[in-house]
Amino acid sequence: MTTDALSRVFSALSDPIRRDMVARLADGDATVNELAEPYDVTVQAVSKHLRVLEEAGLVSRSRQAQRRPVHLEAGVFDLMSTWIERYRRHAEERYRRLDDVLAALPDDVEPVPPTRQGA
Amino acid sequence: MTTDALSRVFSALSDPIRRDMVARLADGDATVNELAEPYDVTVQAVSKHLRVLEEAGLVSRSRQAQRRPVHLEAGVFDLMSTWIERYRRHAEERYRRLDDVLAALPDDVEPVPPTRQGA
Repeated sequence: MTTDALSRVFSALSDPIRRDMVARLADGDATVNELAEPYDVTVQAVSKHLRVLEEAGLVSRSRQAQRRPVHLEAGVFDLMSTWIERYRRHAEERYRRLDDVLAALPDDVEPVPPTRQGA
Repeated sequence: MTTDALSRVFSALSDPIRRDMVARLADGDATVNELAEPYDVTVQAVSKHLRVLEEAGLVSRSRQAQRRPVHLEAGVFDLMSTWIERYRRHAEERYRRLDDVLAALPDDVEPVPPTRQGA
């Protein structure tokens, strides 16, 4: 379900270490050990973070290779971007309509409250 | 701190009811009672969700008005979009470089593994 997928993606990215890992993987695939290197945490802790990212669909791991490098599934970003852009556009359109109303007011009169119709 | 702000925003949006509220507020300000209406939850539960959105900077509430309508702070979307787009672009550039390498191969020969230099 899309709703759950989005919840998982947003939740996975609510942790700064996981966002950092995504940032690193955007530059190229990496092994768990390579990903663990910059952090003062155990490889187990890193594996746990990776599992969260994997369950959210943000990363995948090759099954064949011995090294099993971690790969960023950048397409998942689209899911978030689509959601964000939809509501950003809604909000912007609302402001634009307000601007149009204000711009349509004659310059030489004070704005007045709208008259109630059918009241 | 930006890192914490981002964590709060992603965390706030990891809940489907809170995303729904943001979607609703993109169409216009609303009171707590209006926001609670479509859900089978108490006004208290809705207030709790709103507090999470407020702490993430995603919504604000007017202090003066008796109705205290909730207002979407659409600018916070920029914070997420900037983060997402930066790493999406990184990943895309990486694929483009790979495409360039493949395109530069002569058509009439099979791709060969790169020769090792200085080995």
